[in-house]
Amino acid sequence: MNDQEGFAIAIEEARLGYNEGGVPIGAALVSRDGKLLGRGHNMRVQKGSAIHHGETAALENSGRLPASAYKGATMFTTLSPCDMCTGACILYGISRVVIGENKTFLGGEAYLKQRGIEVVVLECQECQDLMDMFIREKPEVWNEDIGEEQRVYSKESK
Amino acid sequence: MNDQEGFAIAIEEARLGYNEGGVPIGAALVSRDGKLLGRGHNMRVQKGSAIHHGETAALENSGRLPASAYKGATMFTTLSPCDMCTGACILYGISRVVIGENKTFLGGEAYLKQRGIEVVVLECQECQDLMDMFIREKPEVWNEDIGEEQRVYSKESK
Repeated sequence: MNDQEGFAIAIEEARLGYNEGGVPIGAALVSRDGKLLGRGHNMRVQKGSAIHHGETAALENSGRLPASAYKGATMFTTLSPCDMCTGACILYGISRVVIGENKTFLGGEAYLKQRGIEVVVLECQECQDLMDMFIREKPEVWNEDIGEEQRVYSKESK
Repeated sequence: MNDQEGFAIAIEEARLGYNEGGVPIGAALVSRDGKLLGRGHNMRVQKGSAIHHGETAALENSGRLPASAYKGATMFTTLSPCDMCTGACILYGISRVVIGENKTFLGGEAYLKQRGIEVVVLECQECQDLMDMFIREKPEVWNEDIGEEQRVYSKESK
């Protein structure tokens, strides 16, 4: 599959997450030769999980793979990766991270680049809209997911 | 519990992992006031998991917690944390990481310090012995766990 198809799976996963009442972040891991290795979405709410973020869920659902499988692979994710997911991409030597948006949250993009990983940021309005809706509805879950102290969101803020 | 008790749980988890045929790395997350939040060990072999390392398993088994729960907490781990587990400790704002040994593998210790986390390295011979045994027996599983290409281990090497 091409980049557009890979990214479309990440968005589909984010929508699935939203429809399940969860944090709407999805990801897809695609090999160098365009094969889908795994896909997944944040499972904090659904599984009571602290470690199944979009990217780590895609890695988990890819199963056990030798290091060679990740070489040249691309992680498509709807949101800029947090420090954990950044580290997971570095651990496995993923070559490229394609990010839906980084306006809601700016994660470890600079560190990914520093560690030799190509970073592409799309400006995906649907990704941002999903996050805006979710954060308006469940700000406390979002804060929990990014390890932040409770913030006050006014009704006017997005 | 005190540090010695916290670290003893991490070793116990590593032993459990070894006895299950898995990667013998264990961890325990202890709150600022000395309460065990969660404990776990690497589940690559047992669950076919790419993301349940010692530290992430301890986080997962701690369940959903607000950011405040991690403040002042210590992650006890038998081995220097890989990039993913380093990032997980940073994400949740864990204050201190106590490491059994870093001779088998040197992970993100410098980055943890750079991000303001206290790092303590013990020289735990039992932790190292467990890893030595495991890597002699299953070098390919160990390489897979750290995202490394297959290395050749001679019969003479440790």
